[in-house]
Amino acid sequence: MTELTRERVAAAYASLVTGDREQILQYWSPDVRFQMPGNHQYSGWFVGLDDYLAKMGKLMAATGGRISSETLNVLVDQEAGVSIDVYRLDGYREHAKEGATSPYERLQVEGVHMLRWEDGRIVEGRSALFADGVTQGNLWWSPVGADGERYEY
Amino acid sequence: MTELTRERVAAAYASLVTGDREQILQYWSPDVRFQMPGNHQYSGWFVGLDDYLAKMGKLMAATGGRISSETLNVLVDQEAGVSIDVYRLDGYREHAKEGATSPYERLQVEGVHMLRWEDGRIVEGRSALFADGVTQGNLWWSPVGADGERYEY
Amino acid sequence: MTELTRERVAAAYASLVTGDREQILQYWSPDVRFQMPGNHQYSGWFVGLDDYLAKMGKLMAATGGRISSETLNVLVDQEAGVSIDVYRLDGYREHAKEGATSPYERLQVEGVHMLRWEDGRIVEGRSALFADGVTQGNLWWSPVGADGERYEY
Amino acid sequence: MTELTRERVAAAYASLVTGDREQILQYWSPDVRFQMPGNHQYSGWFVGLDDYLAKMGKLMAATGGRISSETLNVLVDQEAGVSIDVYRLDGYREHAKEGATSPYERLQVEGVHMLRWEDGRIVEGRSALFADGVTQGNLWWSPVGADGERYEY
Repeated sequence: MTELTRERVAAAYASLVTGDREQILQYWSPDVRFQMPGNHQYSGWFVGLDDYLAKMGKLMAATGGRISSETLNVLVDQEAGVSIDVYRLDGYREHAKEGATSPYERLQVEGVHMLRWEDGRIVEGRSALFADGVTQGNLWWSPVGADGERYEY
Repeated sequence: MTELTRERVAAAYASLVTGDREQILQYWSPDVRFQMPGNHQYSGWFVGLDDYLAKMGKLMAATGGRISSETLNVLVDQEAGVSIDVYRLDGYREHAKEGATSPYERLQVEGVHMLRWEDGRIVEGRSALFADGVTQGNLWWSPVGADGERYEY
Repeated sequence: MTELTRERVAAAYASLVTGDREQILQYWSPDVRFQMPGNHQYSGWFVGLDDYLAKMGKLMAATGGRISSETLNVLVDQEAGVSIDVYRLDGYREHAKEGATSPYERLQVEGVHMLRWEDGRIVEGRSALFADGVTQGNLWWSPVGADGERYEY
Repeated sequence: MTELTRERVAAAYASLVTGDREQILQYWSPDVRFQMPGNHQYSGWFVGLDDYLAKMGKLMAATGGRISSETLNVLVDQEAGVSIDVYRLDGYREHAKEGATSPYERLQVEGVHMLRWEDGRIVEGRSALFADGVTQGNLWWSPVGADGERYEY
């Protein structure tokens, strides 16, 4: 039986970056469901690993690669098969100028991922944001910039 | 010079339904800009008649044709070249069951279109909603249904 | 019978500033209902002139007097007893520094007031905001500043 | 040194219900800061135990006592001095009819509290909600009911 540890949580996220499906499948169930908070275009449940990876790719593209993520804490409950990691994001929309502070262009939030593990793999993930992060995420993900113009077609 | 009257406002909207570009161009400038309120996926400025018509077609598709619109008042200021029409919408998202009341599935709002006219044609339109209609529009336009699942891919 | 003109609309707003109830009652019904858009603490229907004036006083206090308002257009439909005025607001919250741009501190929006008149007096008013003004109004009216701290107790 | 355990987290919440300040102070610092998510009237940081208890009392009053809370998971990191409990809420606003489903009247959400402990007491708490819970919380906490009328004065 695979032990649920902080190291295993970190390894699960690290596997995503490799893009190597075999590695990813060591940590993520092909049937994983993952829920993004809010009501924007990427909110709701992503269904299955393919959908999850495709959507995460689009999210990354929407930032033009200009997003950084930091893990602040990782808590695990081996018995319940649950981990919660606390993270901080700082990202720009692709159209935003460096140093922008409008919530329509820059996202600076902290939140949690709650992951459910079965047989050593993640079967469910849910995200939540502290403070007014969900509203700020809705604005950031909207197609509208701080000037009211659309940056998506 | 074309007079700006309530009848002309009504005829402009009626022309959209014909799908006949020549007719539409009698009332709408090819360079028209039209702004949808809120921060959802169809918010912001639509740029040019083609963009406007394409987006309005997608909006209609998102309802599965189940939306009704009623004009309550039309006010015109001939001198300023401005008309404001007051409207009421009642529409379902395509995935919603008849009789649904959740704001994620049913939109029942009242609002205004403010139109600017030049040389007898609309060059700018902006929409605003009364009460909490903008938030309700954000929920309705989100890809998420009342059950939290996504209905768009 | 009192004619509904742009001048009368302007005079109705001007009467509010006098604070003279007799003057105000020449334009506003004691039973007026007035609706603020959004879901913040001042949203919804204000019921009766006293409630309306008290709430507007609190709104003004929340800005520390640092709000300016400009009327852009006034349209009237004498027959229907309806006027719609288009306005632009620029205001700070009391706790905001001059030049602040965060939507939690500064409100820069355009919108409409739709007024219904009976016997020469306003019996109903409703406000709506263009663009993402309603969300911005929710942020502005929240007790939370751009730093996440509360500025109301 | 006091050990940080699930039992201690449970006891900290249980102490709040007693209303006995001495008991509460065994688990909560008098200088505790607690952050409610969203942008509604109770959002932001509550500063100090008195402020926290007073605001929680008002929250309870706003439900007319009709709210239930369930703890789903408790995770602790003794070394970091952090606990995260996962909870489910189901509550009505005081003005809501039994069985109401509108988000302006009924709140059904899941989320987390992240607590920081020092010397055996909670010095910081932050809450976050999954799915679109923050928006639903904003609607629920708004003074406006599903009918658009205000239920607070």
